[in-house]
Amino acid sequence: MNTDLQDFSHKRYNILTGEWVLVSPHRAKRPWQGQNETVNNEVRPSHDPSCYLCAGNTRINGEINPKYQDAFVFTNDFAALQTDSKKFEVEDGLLKAQSEQGICKVICFSPDHSKSLADMDAKDIEKVVFAWQREFKELAENDLINYVQIFENKGAVMGCSNPHPHGQIWSQTTLPNEVDKKNTHQLNYFNKTKSSLLGDYLAQELEKQERIIFENDAFVVLIPFWAVWPFETMIVPKKQQKDILELTGNETLLFGEAISVITKAYDKLFNTSFPYSSGIHQAPTNGEDNAHWHWHMSFYPPLLRSASVKKFMVGYEMFGSPQRDITAESAVKMLRDLL
Amino acid sequence: MNTDLQDFSHKRYNILTGEWVLVSPHRAKRPWQGQNETVNNEVRPSHDPSCYLCAGNTRINGEINPKYQDAFVFTNDFAALQTDSKKFEVEDGLLKAQSEQGICKVICFSPDHSKSLADMDAKDIEKVVFAWQREFKELAENDLINYVQIFENKGAVMGCSNPHPHGQIWSQTTLPNEVDKKNTHQLNYFNKTKSSLLGDYLAQELEKQERIIFENDAFVVLIPFWAVWPFETMIVPKKQQKDILELTGNETLLFGEAISVITKAYDKLFNTSFPYSSGIHQAPTNGEDNAHWHWHMSFYPPLLRSASVKKFMVGYEMFGSPQRDITAESAVKMLRDLL
Ligand SMILES: O=P(O)(O)O[C@H]1O[C@H](CO)[C@@H](O)[C@H](O)[C@H]1O
Ligand SMILES: O=P(O)(O)O[C@H]1O[C@H](CO)[C@@H](O)[C@H](O)[C@H]1O
Repeated sequence: MNTDLQDFSHKRYNILTGEWVLVSPHRAKRPWQGQNETVNNEVRPSHDPSCYLCAGNTRINGEINPKYQDAFVFTNDFAALQTDSKKFEVEDGLLKAQSEQGICKVICFSPDHSKSLADMDAKDIEKVVFAWQREFKELAENDLINYVQIFENKGAVMGCSNPHPHGQIWSQTTLPNEVDKKNTHQLNYFNKTKSSLLGDYLAQELEKQERIIFENDAFVVLIPFWAVWPFETMIVPKKQQKDILELTGNETLLFGEAISVITKAYDKLFNTSFPYSSGIHQAPTNGEDNAHWHWHMSFYPPLLRSASVKKFMVGYEMFGSPQRDITAESAVKMLRDLL
Repeated sequence: MNTDLQDFSHKRYNILTGEWVLVSPHRAKRPWQGQNETVNNEVRPSHDPSCYLCAGNTRINGEINPKYQDAFVFTNDFAALQTDSKKFEVEDGLLKAQSEQGICKVICFSPDHSKSLADMDAKDIEKVVFAWQREFKELAENDLINYVQIFENKGAVMGCSNPHPHGQIWSQTTLPNEVDKKNTHQLNYFNKTKSSLLGDYLAQELEKQERIIFENDAFVVLIPFWAVWPFETMIVPKKQQKDILELTGNETLLFGEAISVITKAYDKLFNTSFPYSSGIHQAPTNGEDNAHWHWHMSFYPPLLRSASVKKFMVGYEMFGSPQRDITAESAVKMLRDLL
């Protein structure tokens, strides 16, 4: 292990986005004097009559949820993107805009109001994976849709408005910023080497074993070298696959296991229902072969030192670069000890 | 005014960074069910004996602050960057890192613990501008430093650990991500047109008068077409200047006035001490002539609908693109009415 990386300020390069993160390991010890978040460790009932996501309940728009058994998907009642909105373009000197169409959906992970993914086992989570696959397939076949973003905001601190276990799927015509960057960097590498950027990276990490948290036959859970959030992690399939439709055999279950392992470790870390945003970056659904794509799922959790102290990505981070104190390698050790 | 931009989902292009923001105007009306922030409108004393930034008080490292009268600057006691840390480089397959040196400072805007920039008049703020100039000049002359980031985190919700009015200055050897993008886009435009990207943009906005909040002889305060945060604003000098050292005559006072006007409007908007991160993007201090640079100051405030409801940049925003509901043009009207 390179000890300079544990001792001195440096920046690390993100091979997927081409951006840098500033790491200041010596600063992990400064005292905390800022805001403390409210921690809500209240035990929730399995069914909440006032929850608009629980089975059988009525949503804001008057629709009644079915008595669903596992994952349940519906179109977002306040969708940021719509299929039938007007198409237009603005090119007026230095003002440039274009309309964007899309479909936004909500996916309930379980009818049980009290459970998060961390409380579900691999087999339960596999049902969520099946639902993601069904939705991804249907959206991919829609000519309007060229990219599908699956994500979850977990916890009030992550802007989640309802504790019922659920995620979202926003799909649209063009590639969003982050996906566009990853598309470019994977493509450049693939054109040069004919191999997967993330696959080659994974091989290097498996060799070193410095940032690996967990692996099974099909997946590796690791903290990427360039992680931004204190306990950011990534689930990467060992085989190069461009999207989750390429999972075969028991790989859906093994993906469920990887999600289960990391979310359970998170909950143990600060003894709280661990907040995060997670998301799956996959190849565009634009009909091209996208042989350069290697899909992966990332977790961006905001907590820094305890259930109530989070990392703020503010001033310097907004105007300069993301910055972290604790190194990826120290964070790995803390999470690995909790498996 | 193009009404499509007020009615239908679209994305707008940021000419300075090359990135897009997703705008969903129809969504501004959805009900809020998420977390409410704690609002602290408590009146503070002019001097707080337990505040480590107040004049005459002792800081954590034992140093005693002087009995300063206006702006007071010192080196950050827990600096993320240092001048004497080890220089090294890692190029190990797909792992890439390099050491980063720098100087981090704290700048108190006033000895009065109870005041924020919004409570100070143009003349008081001019003293802060003078201090920024002094620090910028000194850092620019340091061979180690090629970029200087002046910023402020205001409010607990923005990770600010002390309500005493203060900002920070982080300076370093290389260009952080955001500055690098703006450098590239300004340079490309300048090479093609021999004119300032932001200058030409400003001319267009002054013509249209759709996004202008305030102007005086030297500055314009506007909401950029591509703004991300609900009430994001930008202060731009009318003349092309590469950094704040080029301010002449009464322009320092007029800059103070622009800051005073926008921060006062912010406080009135939701009747609270308005949180934000602000920052000044200026030309690198790398000894090149940087004729393509047009400096500007931006405010990124997190509030969305009230003093307690903020915009969360989470899931879709982290994995896709930033997203907003209220349009730049509606936000301008709200702020302009408060002048
Ligand atoms: O330096 P402070 O005020 O302790 O810390 C604050 O500003 C820094 C620079 O934007 C951030 O890195 C920290 O996350 C934030 O809490
Ligand atoms: O869609 P929700 O859960 O109401 O809203 C949440 O997730 C969205 C997608 O990440 C964000 O745009 C919102 O700011 C956030 O509050």
